[in-house]
Amino acid sequence: MAGNTFGKLFQVTTFGESHGGAVGCVVDGCPPGLEISTEDIQKDLDRRKPGQSKITSPRQEEDKIIILSGVFEGKTTGTPIMMMAKNKNARPEDYEKLKNIFRPGHADFTFQKKFGIRDWRGSGRSSARETLARVAAGAIAKKFLNEKLEMEFIASIEEVAGVKIKSNEETIKIIETAKKDGDSVGGVIKGVIKNVPIGLGEPVFDKLSADLGKAMLSIPAVKGFEIGSGFAGAKMRGSEHNDSFFTDEKGRIRTKTNFSGGIQGGISNGEDIYFRVAFKPVSTIRKEQDTVNLKGQNVKIEATGRHDPCVLPRAVPIIEAMAAITIMDHFLRNKTLC
Amino acid sequence: MAGNTFGKLFQVTTFGESHGGAVGCVVDGCPPGLEISTEDIQKDLDRRKPGQSKITSPRQEEDKIIILSGVFEGKTTGTPIMMMAKNKNARPEDYEKLKNIFRPGHADFTFQKKFGIRDWRGSGRSSARETLARVAAGAIAKKFLNEKLEMEFIASIEEVAGVKIKSNEETIKIIETAKKDGDSVGGVIKGVIKNVPIGLGEPVFDKLSADLGKAMLSIPAVKGFEIGSGFAGAKMRGSEHNDSFFTDEKGRIRTKTNFSGGIQGGISNGEDIYFRVAFKPVSTIRKEQDTVNLKGQNVKIEATGRHDPCVLPRAVPIIEAMAAITIMDHFLRNKTLC
Amino acid sequence: MAGNTFGKLFQVTTFGESHGGAVGCVVDGCPPGLEISTEDIQKDLDRRKPGQSKITSPRQEEDKIIILSGVFEGKTTGTPIMMMAKNKNARPEDYEKLKNIFRPGHADFTFQKKFGIRDWRGSGRSSARETLARVAAGAIAKKFLNEKLEMEFIASIEEVAGVKIKSNEETIKIIETAKKDGDSVGGVIKGVIKNVPIGLGEPVFDKLSADLGKAMLSIPAVKGFEIGSGFAGAKMRGSEHNDSFFTDEKGRIRTKTNFSGGIQGGISNGEDIYFRVAFKPVSTIRKEQDTVNLKGQNVKIEATGRHDPCVLPRAVPIIEAMAAITIMDHFLRNKTLC
Amino acid sequence: MAGNTFGKLFQVTTFGESHGGAVGCVVDGCPPGLEISTEDIQKDLDRRKPGQSKITSPRQEEDKIIILSGVFEGKTTGTPIMMMAKNKNARPEDYEKLKNIFRPGHADFTFQKKFGIRDWRGSGRSSARETLARVAAGAIAKKFLNEKLEMEFIASIEEVAGVKIKSNEETIKIIETAKKDGDSVGGVIKGVIKNVPIGLGEPVFDKLSADLGKAMLSIPAVKGFEIGSGFAGAKMRGSEHNDSFFTDEKGRIRTKTNFSGGIQGGISNGEDIYFRVAFKPVSTIRKEQDTVNLKGQNVKIEATGRHDPCVLPRAVPIIEAMAAITIMDHFLRNKTLC
Repeated sequence: MAGNTFGKLFQVTTFGESHGGAVGCVVDGCPPGLEISTEDIQKDLDRRKPGQSKITSPRQEEDKIIILSGVFEGKTTGTPIMMMAKNKNARPEDYEKLKNIFRPGHADFTFQKKFGIRDWRGSGRSSARETLARVAAGAIAKKFLNEKLEMEFIASIEEVAGVKIKSNEETIKIIETAKKDGDSVGGVIKGVIKNVPIGLGEPVFDKLSADLGKAMLSIPAVKGFEIGSGFAGAKMRGSEHNDSFFTDEKGRIRTKTNFSGGIQGGISNGEDIYFRVAFKPVSTIRKEQDTVNLKGQNVKIEATGRHDPCVLPRAVPIIEAMAAITIMDHFLRNKTLC
Repeated sequence: MAGNTFGKLFQVTTFGESHGGAVGCVVDGCPPGLEISTEDIQKDLDRRKPGQSKITSPRQEEDKIIILSGVFEGKTTGTPIMMMAKNKNARPEDYEKLKNIFRPGHADFTFQKKFGIRDWRGSGRSSARETLARVAAGAIAKKFLNEKLEMEFIASIEEVAGVKIKSNEETIKIIETAKKDGDSVGGVIKGVIKNVPIGLGEPVFDKLSADLGKAMLSIPAVKGFEIGSGFAGAKMRGSEHNDSFFTDEKGRIRTKTNFSGGIQGGISNGEDIYFRVAFKPVSTIRKEQDTVNLKGQNVKIEATGRHDPCVLPRAVPIIEAMAAITIMDHFLRNKTLC
Repeated sequence: MAGNTFGKLFQVTTFGESHGGAVGCVVDGCPPGLEISTEDIQKDLDRRKPGQSKITSPRQEEDKIIILSGVFEGKTTGTPIMMMAKNKNARPEDYEKLKNIFRPGHADFTFQKKFGIRDWRGSGRSSARETLARVAAGAIAKKFLNEKLEMEFIASIEEVAGVKIKSNEETIKIIETAKKDGDSVGGVIKGVIKNVPIGLGEPVFDKLSADLGKAMLSIPAVKGFEIGSGFAGAKMRGSEHNDSFFTDEKGRIRTKTNFSGGIQGGISNGEDIYFRVAFKPVSTIRKEQDTVNLKGQNVKIEATGRHDPCVLPRAVPIIEAMAAITIMDHFLRNKTLC
Repeated sequence: MAGNTFGKLFQVTTFGESHGGAVGCVVDGCPPGLEISTEDIQKDLDRRKPGQSKITSPRQEEDKIIILSGVFEGKTTGTPIMMMAKNKNARPEDYEKLKNIFRPGHADFTFQKKFGIRDWRGSGRSSARETLARVAAGAIAKKFLNEKLEMEFIASIEEVAGVKIKSNEETIKIIETAKKDGDSVGGVIKGVIKNVPIGLGEPVFDKLSADLGKAMLSIPAVKGFEIGSGFAGAKMRGSEHNDSFFTDEKGRIRTKTNFSGGIQGGISNGEDIYFRVAFKPVSTIRKEQDTVNLKGQNVKIEATGRHDPCVLPRAVPIIEAMAAITIMDHFLRNKTLC
């Protein structure tokens, strides 16, 4: 109820703070018999970890995952899978001077007001470090869905700082420029899910689009989500937007266009699911800003601590993970129709 | 688990099909002692009901709500509140000829594939008629939050068919034009929530923004959601986007700008919450379209049945209702911090 | 969260008060395609309804069930099934004089203290009338499990007022004697579930025995539950209690004895599940009793209102219903192992 | 949904197998600001741990708990608390020869059939070692409820092998006798909860008695549960069983007797809650038994591995823990009445 669990049948509960003992998760409801190893998981974690390049946080964390339960002789047993990575390169002293100050754009103020107490070391529970656990859980979901249904989850950067991206170099260049200015940028990531079985999602509140939306909007810094035609679709007419059905050469019922984004009435129709996720610019910047302290007094702040000038490069595997977790949950839910 | 319940503490379970016996809901978890009458609820239902004007469906339904449990001597008792409206002007014969055809843009195909059976009368469970129950439940949440905290929920049409709306007449004109063409249009509704207490929302998966997003994306025809700066925020720099804190004349900590949309780190900060919701154009149009039937054969279809050429006018109270239900749920959740 | 829903995948939400508008339920998660009619449900309701004989409450209620959603052309559609029975023979005036008095053994005092308000007409929400909805939902579960797996749910009275029961006449005689004395009696009902598939139940908190226990303990007036050997098993030695495995003539692994009651480690092993449920004597008696009123003043009370001198005869179908709902839920949960 | 989580607002998710990497839990929903240290938790764990005396399993485990998240500067922060103890004295080789044999009375057979795979080392997930995590979580609940409400949770052995227990020596003597015979014994533990606030529990499915029952029945080896008068109450008449209300010298409404066991209509009435829990004799015995192997062939088995001849001494803190977790959950749920 405190919102640290995602999913109803494939349930991912994450724990851990940025500079606490460890960050990890318990995955409950994973079907038994899936071959899984730390390598399967580490692969995705390495795509997310900091210190990879000039444009990501210099914090040195191996993010080495260990599996402490639920896997026996290389296979899942149907019992809870606990995975975690110890925090090694924690530098809480970096945050000491910020402990009484509310950083603009961060959760410091709301966290303090809500809980009356706050682990001020590197954003504590609100740190993007929590997403490590999501990527680990997502790696299991991806493996299951890929082996069983050949499903694929592919996220890619579509826009950075308002610029449509054509190459990785372009992304790096824009982010480096912002970094040099002591500033930060946001952008848009596109997600595509391929080979989705027909029938996933529920007709009313738990529409697949609604649950994917929630999954994405729960990622730190996300401000917007659209499925299929999205906001652009709101400008179209019905005669243009409706995806006509036809039967393809293999006898499958398909749609000619895919403005629906692979989901109709909340339920997958077998076409590719695609969606877009908007990220705001990172709140931590190297410029002086106005803010207040715990007592409400006006103070100036200049960010310290290690951070990314743009979350997008590291967010790509997070989006894939959250998509996989959502689909996995609905895949299991669909089993209960008998 | 079949996704007909929304909320964890203020739980709304809806039931009913477009042309079945009744549409309604059970509201569980409403605090005792709230004065509530059918009038309180009917007020909002009347804003949603069809047959109100030339631009809404001509289906004549009183949508008269009755309360059958949970209210005693005019007050909620803390037990489940069951409310429903009988379907009176059902005309299932209108749909008889469509029962073996998949209407483009509708849930006919996905519903049939998922469940192997489908109430084809007027979209059955996927009908927008289900939202009647949401509005009824939302009316209770609105009343509670307004009486207790002076909260307000205000939705308004911002864009129709790509046109920024300045007046109600403008909306009517655009929709009438589309209707005359036998076509339909979509648009964008803006929602604003005022006087939100600080601290609602949970830091990780159940961010207030994520739950509002899910609530909105669960409304039929919704394709996009953005909170605060949204997709536009993704083009900004951090130095511009960060909302600086200051202490106002009443000693309250506020932000100078509100790009966050009243939610930081998933938790409300006391500023107005605002968001935008994109609706696709209505799928039912009066034009001939290509599609397939149950056997997968190519057929032509021309819509019949009563329908709206644009959902936006009737969607305004639905958005307010879903926002109120979401906030109510998080208000109760916040009580458990002790 | 207010506890009016039972089950995680086969979810039964009940609503209604003893003398309110109606009593009923929403069943969410029932698989599509099950043939169901009001007759299927009425059959069990008639076993539970009052006014059947001299030893049950004289309240005349037809308890006529209507299905208002989720069933189309005689089959379930996979959407929520709402069923209800209107309260017809309500006589709230019988309770007028009790509205400020706490009846001993009843929920009047705790309800008033918890909610600060209470529908005092015939116990309101705490009335055994709520179990009508459980029996209706259970009828659906029983039908599904019987058609699909030939499962049977059989409850029978084992003990009344401390006497082991051999015949129905015996039960009637004991209850009539108590009734004549203006008093009430309790007893024990045994439940047996046959043809349970192996593998239902979860290993840790949601053991099948734990969920059956909760189901039974949630029935009004229940004070005890035992599975298999129960309290008697606590007196045995391991060498005597352990159920030895053997392979039967059909090649199935069975146990020679069944002290486990068909459940081992929380999971069904294919043997008959059996359990015993203890009911206290009915709280409403026709004798003068000491109690207090709302102001805490000492008063005398003599019960009025219609009631049963013993709940057991009408509790038999309730126990079968709750057992079927519990098994149905776990049957669906087991589907998610893939 | 796989049943590794207990509670709705104070949510305890346990993980870990007997001979895997670690056993532990995530406690989500603990209010912020509670002072908690590993000592607070270790205290109860030490009462549960093996190797304490001649009558408990000789397995040497320190059961040293570590807290890896959710506690900052000695206080809970409102975020998930992850606690675990590494398995140190695991001896999987003891179980190697049992990996293809179904031990009578154990979960080996049902686990294998349900999941198709099974961690055969020392009962895996079905090991009583899982209860370590429950005791850790319960220690937090106990501390909170004791500090805030002076609540007390006291369990004690009432009966062993059918003998009413008057002293600890008596218990030891009975268990030693069984051990010498290579056999095992069961018994009954009584639980008492003092200073319970009025109003905890929900009127229908989530009666406090039903949730306590489920909590106890989820403990390994439990076969029965009774609240208040229990099975003995089923033999009484209403005039005898009804607890008369009176107003005490402090002006509080109390009951003269307490056959209800502190719970009426599912809701606590302020009197002591008391209940009894029946444990079967331990399944592992040092006698030859008949059973079958994975192929269904008849084989003989004689237990090896370290084990307790009676679970009761170590079950006392487990019962207290599960009671505290249940009450804590309902305490938080009650907060949502506003």
